Amino acid sequence: SIHGGRLLRHIQQLGQIGRDAGGQLTRLAASDNDKHGRDVLIAWIKEAGLEAAVDRIGNIFGIWRVPGQEHQAPVLIGSHIDTVINAGVYDGCYGVLAGLEVIRTLKEAGFTPSRPIAVAAFTNEEGVRYAPDMMGSLVYAGGLQIEEALASVGTDGSVLGEELARIGYAGTEEPGFMMPHAYVELHIEQGPVLESMDIPIGAVENLQGISWQRITIEGVANHAGTTPMPMRKDAGHAAARVITFLRDRAIHSQTSAVATVGCIRFEPDAINVIPSKATFTVDLRNPDEQSLQAEEAALAEYLIELAIAEGVTITTERMARFEPVIFDAAIVGLVEAAARQRGLTSKRMTSGAGHDAQMMARICPAAMIFVPSIGGISHNPNEHTPEPDLVAGANVLLDVIADLAR
Amino acid sequence: SIHGGRLLRHIQQLGQIGRDAGGQLTRLAASDNDKHGRDVLIAWIKEAGLEAAVDRIGNIFGIWRVPGQEHQAPVLIGSHIDTVINAGVYDGCYGVLAGLEVIRTLKEAGFTPSRPIAVAAFTNEEGVRYAPDMMGSLVYAGGLQIEEALASVGTDGSVLGEELARIGYAGTEEPGFMMPHAYVELHIEQGPVLESMDIPIGAVENLQGISWQRITIEGVANHAGTTPMPMRKDAGHAAARVITFLRDRAIHSQTSAVATVGCIRFEPDAINVIPSKATFTVDLRNPDEQSLQAEEAALAEYLIELAIAEGVTITTERMARFEPVIFDAAIVGLVEAAARQRGLTSKRMTSGAGHDAQMMARICPAAMIFVPSIGGISHNPNEHTPEPDLVAGANVLLDVIADLAR
Ligand SMILES: NC(=O)NCCC(=O)O
Ligand SMILES: NC(=O)NCCC(=O)O
Repeated sequence: SIHGGRLLRHIQQLGQIGRDAGGQLTRLAASDNDKHGRDVLIAWIKEAGLEAAVDRIGNIFGIWRVPGQEHQAPVLIGSHIDTVINAGVYDGCYGVLAGLEVIRTLKEAGFTPSRPIAVAAFTNEEGVRYAPDMMGSLVYAGGLQIEEALASVGTDGSVLGEELARIGYAGTEEPGFMMPHAYVELHIEQGPVLESMDIPIGAVENLQGISWQRITIEGVANHAGTTPMPMRKDAGHAAARVITFLRDRAIHSQTSAVATVGCIRFEPDAINVIPSKATFTVDLRNPDEQSLQAEEAALAEYLIELAIAEGVTITTERMARFEPVIFDAAIVGLVEAAARQRGLTSKRMTSGAGHDAQMMARICPAAMIFVPSIGGISHNPNEHTPEPDLVAGANVLLDVIADLAR
Repeated sequence: SIHGGRLLRHIQQLGQIGRDAGGQLTRLAASDNDKHGRDVLIAWIKEAGLEAAVDRIGNIFGIWRVPGQEHQAPVLIGSHIDTVINAGVYDGCYGVLAGLEVIRTLKEAGFTPSRPIAVAAFTNEEGVRYAPDMMGSLVYAGGLQIEEALASVGTDGSVLGEELARIGYAGTEEPGFMMPHAYVELHIEQGPVLESMDIPIGAVENLQGISWQRITIEGVANHAGTTPMPMRKDAGHAAARVITFLRDRAIHSQTSAVATVGCIRFEPDAINVIPSKATFTVDLRNPDEQSLQAEEAALAEYLIELAIAEGVTITTERMARFEPVIFDAAIVGLVEAAARQRGLTSKRMTSGAGHDAQMMARICPAAMIFVPSIGGISHNPNEHTPEPDLVAGANVLLDVIADLAR
């Protein structure tokens, strides 16, 4: 079994890096705070006696390779250490640090792996600063050209490639330099299912599709006091209609559709001026590709009607689009078996969040392990998983990795 | 008659001050751009041979006083030269520059006024940077303590008093130092009425009430992919509901209610995080005080229902509240008579916008003259009034001022 105290300590230590004066944790991809987190991870990788490597998109690897395994495909454990704004400490970090702990435990136990075992921290999984999300693993899996990814412009106008170079994490390895034999990712559920059913282990068999767009509505700025209601071309009001449309559709959907508007901006942004422009993001998800396409089509149709009804111009820009993913049945079976043998109940389930595993599934057998999130809360400082569940999840990961590398 | 070419030239010259690299005009109150505009106005006041004065809230006065009139109450013409963001050139500036032109014309024509005639440019009429709007005239009329006004914190975190001192316009006169005999303000309509009826002169007999609030909705940040729709406490969605509620109510109102949401902000403002917080402004107006109160009450009631339905917390903060104003019937009559004598049709009407005249009406007989706005467009760079209408309005002002100071 893994060293629970060491894992929990590492999680809390990494979770202190990138807090502002008010105590809020934010380590956006390729920021100064991300650099500090990366430096600590590299130190721990070296402390564990692993070989550290960084690729051109900034993905970090800690590799355990016994002599003679130089050309063998590794079993890879991965996740990310970038965070959202005002984040919790578990999202991503738990999976990376549990991966490191699993490798240390196997080394310390004198386990002889039949192939290398490595842990990865992928760049910009959250997609908060640069779109799309899961960018590091997407590039690694060959789904996005490295040059295109490095040229990504962030919400703050920064360029990812320049930021990686600035923080010293524009590595030299070519993304994909180490094709994995298998990939396993341990993550907090970030949803309410496991906790509400009192089940400690989720054997994640699929992951829903993700559709991200930026919508821009252009109306006409005019005076808030003198412009009769019927004469307005109010871009802000039209944006509000889209938000309520998406909510009403998702809440009444027969599928498990979810829809979120997380960012919005009005121009000129003055109290007594009718907004001439509204810009906002739309995040649509569905475990079923057909249903996701239907939601996208319904939105597109609504935008056409709305543009006519409100006399506004509406344009959309795709920021990310990933189809649902089905994970490797054999690895999902290993997760269930490992849980059973440790006396833990488990449940086959769908991931509502995007994860690096969904990109790695393009190039090797992959699956995920979930542990409960109290109240289903994530992307929030109150994100929490009880310590016994964190340790149990890491032990299931240990057993699965040992199986894959035996 | 006034010197039309000179007036139009001054309007265009002032309208060039405060343009950014992209050509957008923004002279927010007490900003660097406002300072440049003020400097030019002061130069023109001196060039016209008037006495310049600045009071503690930064209101600028150009005073024409013939010997022996030191203690007499002046006829005051006023408006403002601060602008909204990305503004047109007429809003406010037209009234100030026409006032200056009227005084020059009377002086040059050898007119002997029975009392002083002065022109005023009031500070922060727009209310975009500091709330409430019409602040300079409100302080001048004794409706807001000077210390409280100087302590106002702007949308950019600046303090008005510090900004006025910085740009050199924290004057020494006590606001209200010169109690007017009468006040007249010439302004573009900023609405569609005069143009649509093809009438060049509006004799403004009243001005609608204004209610400004800032609303803050607090929900719970959570993951956009994993949080089922019914479990969300989405502050952004709740804000959108308020916007559509206000729109639906105003558009179906039997009164001339208007409602506008001009500013909005979500937190944490990330594409895949359900907003934990939404902050937005509400601008409600109505020519009838009872009806305005009914709209405020309906909103307050809706916010209570919404907070329960959405599981969010809602707080409101008052930013400005002005009751409707009825202008002086005698001056309104002078405006109509002056138009008639110049062969111009006129129409009694309500002002949809707030104006300094509404504050000055607290301390002296006051009224306003409107000229048409093409397409009813204002608070927009396309704000436009045909030159003949601008000149006609200034001539009506000339006649009314001559009547009042005869
Ligand atoms: N796991 C996780 O929070 N990923 C971020 C990408 C997303 O699902 O929005
Ligand atoms: N006239 C004008 O635009 N005043 C600004 C105050 C307001 O009405 O919002």
